[in-house]
Amino acid sequence: MEHTYRLVIACPDRVGIVAKVSQFIAQHGGWVTDASYHADQDVGWFYMRNEIKADSIAMNLEEFKRAFQKIAEEFQMEWFINDSIVRKKVAILASHASHCLADLLHRWHAGDLFCDIPCVIANHENLREMVEWHDIPFHYVPFEKDKKKEAFAEVDKILENYATDTIVLARFMQILPSEICEKYSDRVINIHHSFLPSFIGANPYQKAYDRGVKLIGATCHFVTPNLDEGPIIEQDVVRVSHRHTKEDMVRLGKDVEKMVLARGVEAHLLDRVIVHGNKTIVLD
Amino acid sequence: MEHTYRLVIACPDRVGIVAKVSQFIAQHGGWVTDASYHADQDVGWFYMRNEIKADSIAMNLEEFKRAFQKIAEEFQMEWFINDSIVRKKVAILASHASHCLADLLHRWHAGDLFCDIPCVIANHENLREMVEWHDIPFHYVPFEKDKKKEAFAEVDKILENYATDTIVLARFMQILPSEICEKYSDRVINIHHSFLPSFIGANPYQKAYDRGVKLIGATCHFVTPNLDEGPIIEQDVVRVSHRHTKEDMVRLGKDVEKMVLARGVEAHLLDRVIVHGNKTIVLD
Amino acid sequence: MEHTYRLVIACPDRVGIVAKVSQFIAQHGGWVTDASYHADQDVGWFYMRNEIKADSIAMNLEEFKRAFQKIAEEFQMEWFINDSIVRKKVAILASHASHCLADLLHRWHAGDLFCDIPCVIANHENLREMVEWHDIPFHYVPFEKDKKKEAFAEVDKILENYATDTIVLARFMQILPSEICEKYSDRVINIHHSFLPSFIGANPYQKAYDRGVKLIGATCHFVTPNLDEGPIIEQDVVRVSHRHTKEDMVRLGKDVEKMVLARGVEAHLLDRVIVHGNKTIVLD
Amino acid sequence: MEHTYRLVIACPDRVGIVAKVSQFIAQHGGWVTDASYHADQDVGWFYMRNEIKADSIAMNLEEFKRAFQKIAEEFQMEWFINDSIVRKKVAILASHASHCLADLLHRWHAGDLFCDIPCVIANHENLREMVEWHDIPFHYVPFEKDKKKEAFAEVDKILENYATDTIVLARFMQILPSEICEKYSDRVINIHHSFLPSFIGANPYQKAYDRGVKLIGATCHFVTPNLDEGPIIEQDVVRVSHRHTKEDMVRLGKDVEKMVLARGVEAHLLDRVIVHGNKTIVLD
Repeated sequence: MEHTYRLVIACPDRVGIVAKVSQFIAQHGGWVTDASYHADQDVGWFYMRNEIKADSIAMNLEEFKRAFQKIAEEFQMEWFINDSIVRKKVAILASHASHCLADLLHRWHAGDLFCDIPCVIANHENLREMVEWHDIPFHYVPFEKDKKKEAFAEVDKILENYATDTIVLARFMQILPSEICEKYSDRVINIHHSFLPSFIGANPYQKAYDRGVKLIGATCHFVTPNLDEGPIIEQDVVRVSHRHTKEDMVRLGKDVEKMVLARGVEAHLLDRVIVHGNKTIVLD
Repeated sequence: MEHTYRLVIACPDRVGIVAKVSQFIAQHGGWVTDASYHADQDVGWFYMRNEIKADSIAMNLEEFKRAFQKIAEEFQMEWFINDSIVRKKVAILASHASHCLADLLHRWHAGDLFCDIPCVIANHENLREMVEWHDIPFHYVPFEKDKKKEAFAEVDKILENYATDTIVLARFMQILPSEICEKYSDRVINIHHSFLPSFIGANPYQKAYDRGVKLIGATCHFVTPNLDEGPIIEQDVVRVSHRHTKEDMVRLGKDVEKMVLARGVEAHLLDRVIVHGNKTIVLD
Repeated sequence: MEHTYRLVIACPDRVGIVAKVSQFIAQHGGWVTDASYHADQDVGWFYMRNEIKADSIAMNLEEFKRAFQKIAEEFQMEWFINDSIVRKKVAILASHASHCLADLLHRWHAGDLFCDIPCVIANHENLREMVEWHDIPFHYVPFEKDKKKEAFAEVDKILENYATDTIVLARFMQILPSEICEKYSDRVINIHHSFLPSFIGANPYQKAYDRGVKLIGATCHFVTPNLDEGPIIEQDVVRVSHRHTKEDMVRLGKDVEKMVLARGVEAHLLDRVIVHGNKTIVLD
Repeated sequence: MEHTYRLVIACPDRVGIVAKVSQFIAQHGGWVTDASYHADQDVGWFYMRNEIKADSIAMNLEEFKRAFQKIAEEFQMEWFINDSIVRKKVAILASHASHCLADLLHRWHAGDLFCDIPCVIANHENLREMVEWHDIPFHYVPFEKDKKKEAFAEVDKILENYATDTIVLARFMQILPSEICEKYSDRVINIHHSFLPSFIGANPYQKAYDRGVKLIGATCHFVTPNLDEGPIIEQDVVRVSHRHTKEDMVRLGKDVEKMVLARGVEAHLLDRVIVHGNKTIVLD
């Protein structure tokens, strides 16, 4: 993995943004290895992501930020610049099902998911061994019916302790309270086991089976206080037929879920995902 | 296209159905070139489709029907046998958009859609020339706001006149009255321009755009009195991104719509689709 | 369709290209509605495409070209700027099969393929009526075994007469002579009925059937003197199984062919395709 | 998982096979829960798979075999009947790459891959811990350049010791000697990291990158003495573009490889795959 700085910008669209930004980068010797832009004419908003070779630029990150601030203000930018070698701290919340967690852990273990995983929190004990084998702390937090508030308080504390940057819900079946959604706004990634907006809420495979659909899907999205209605990052589907029972759909769905979640998480880790309103711009 | 008889059966599941049916066919010398079976353990129902070489069997179709009736009664079968060289009469209803109609007409013209198209009925005039070039009668029936009932009465009469067997709604944007739905039960095929059950009703691409989905789709289904809720025959999707405007989605969606509709219609023409409850069994 | 200028550039990669180009555009008031960039570090080459609102820029196209020439030289650019409302002249060569031709003609007729189609040339007569119904001149050029050279001379002359810009081979089954390939370099688009590089040459479906593949495909590529080895623009596949005969594959393949060809042609018409070496960069 | 017997048959096609077989099953009270048939008219061969509820049938497996033998002889059948609760012994051969192995192990661990995995054999040590965490014996067999024959002799001995039924090559990069291919004929499953027959042999991603394809794929096939030319069980593809480096393709390809391999192995474990000539019939 090349050492780069990732400059990500969203601002009202107008003439001259790219010129100004790319001139700034060029002035400081910045070699852009990857750049994506998008102008959304409907909302009049502009998005860009520049990946700049770290050793090509004559400033450190703090100097860059200070120097760039003037341009940012001129164009009313929402922006950040990240160092590609600084790993995000991604806490994973799980429940009983193992497929998404196992897939993420293996990608991380194999070096294909560039982040730290400071901890896994689950409301079942069954995945402890798998997690600990990866040398990742496993926290069991039971979610009893009348003590969910307390449970989430504990989760919140654990997340704090690890200085968590991003939360991934790997088939965590509890509804996150608004406070956590807002605290980690645009940084809580969920995998929903349906092709949203179809089959919001519980038991989507049962609903898909009952409706007789010919494709089932999965949706990776940022979590907001509105259940299953946050900005969608990635979706995919797999073909089913009358031959498939509900159990077959659950089993086939696992593969789509884990792939879609991994792609969504990876895009986020690479700072490719910008949220605007209730949509994402995924700059490839 | 080989000359075959297609024997299609649905009945309560129990031991011995295949044995009885295949023995009957074998006794009469029937050479089965294609057979599909499905037992749905959830509803306890059994489905089968046998394609039998016409010249291998020592009876004509009427004799077959009479002889088979005893077995059918014993097993409480819903069943039929069709002659592959008898073309279904498929009337197409269209509106202003041409893509689905043009695709169906070309398939028919090229010999890839085995049916008769006795007429096209539309509530706009713009597709007349295209239809008439194919030597198919074109009927213009205007749908004025307060005269929809009269319009549908005229449509119904035209369909009757052509002894229509199957109705295909090729982006016909009017809601069919219950009487026609029921009269042509399981023989009215619609293409809905979304991945149902997402985005039921009008303007699905606008809704898909607003929701920020990453795949858009189309659904071919039998029409029932409940809008967009009939048994699904076929679905497919195409990938979209933040780069796509609503207009792009409409354009990209056209290709999915026409493909999904054609596949659904083809399956129906080949007597591959059985409806049970609100689902289809598509025996390939 | 918005009126824009499309500035397309390929040049050796170095620091400052985007800055220089976007500054030039901004200086002249150019409002960029769509921009894509790609730096290929393997070959050290940079590609960009800017779509600029025509009425935002204070120059006409000729003035732009003259003014931009200095930058182009400085960066050793291969480049052009096209006016989005100037339609490319796309001649279609066909043989006997109708599906690709019919699909292209319908897209054009429906306004979804922005180009002129000055003529269709075919070595069979059977598609004449379909072409002429669209008010497009149809030229029948027979290809007899020993007179192919003469036939291509005639084709070449017809293409010249219509000031053809782009040639689309819509299942034209003759091998284009090198002279025509070179004369229309990077402007002859073919659809090959396999997933290249599998099954180069004749009878790909037979070969796919014999090999027992589980997916069949189609490939849209620019034609070079090396048969089926030109730069690939677009590919897609469709699932097949043991149930499918070779004839089924031919039939299923038609749908993939027509879709892949249409997507390839559309990308070319929008000036999205850059050829470098034997590969394409398709800037979306 | 329901307890069933799986009766799998291949024989020359003629009238009356299904009748005879299904009558035999019905006579003994057999409740068929899943049945698939295929008649290949090109080669004149018939294939069938019946899944029969174990407790519905009044014989044990040995009695069934004896009783059925007469029918089998009459129709010159190649056939077998397997008990669904008898787990196949699947030895996995791996090298250095972990993705396919980790995916198979997790499926097995989660109960989604119904088999025993008596051992993993690898020519690198790096995957030992992962395998042993699953309580599966790990055998390291080094493959030195001039001692491959000895290495394979050792592999063969290990396979023997575990009474191996099926061998899965999970990105094992050595070419299996003919003797092992033949000894485990139609029971050695390989994953090749290209869409065969494209890019046979070493470095397929490099070749795909060099050719500029727009889709990369993976192929699961039975191994024969002819490298990468055995009967194909399953294939799939994933879209790539000019943005993807060779390294990206390797990374993206991992996901296709592991999915395609898992689907192929699962079909084999469920006795759904019949080999005829150099093709498979995968009875779903």
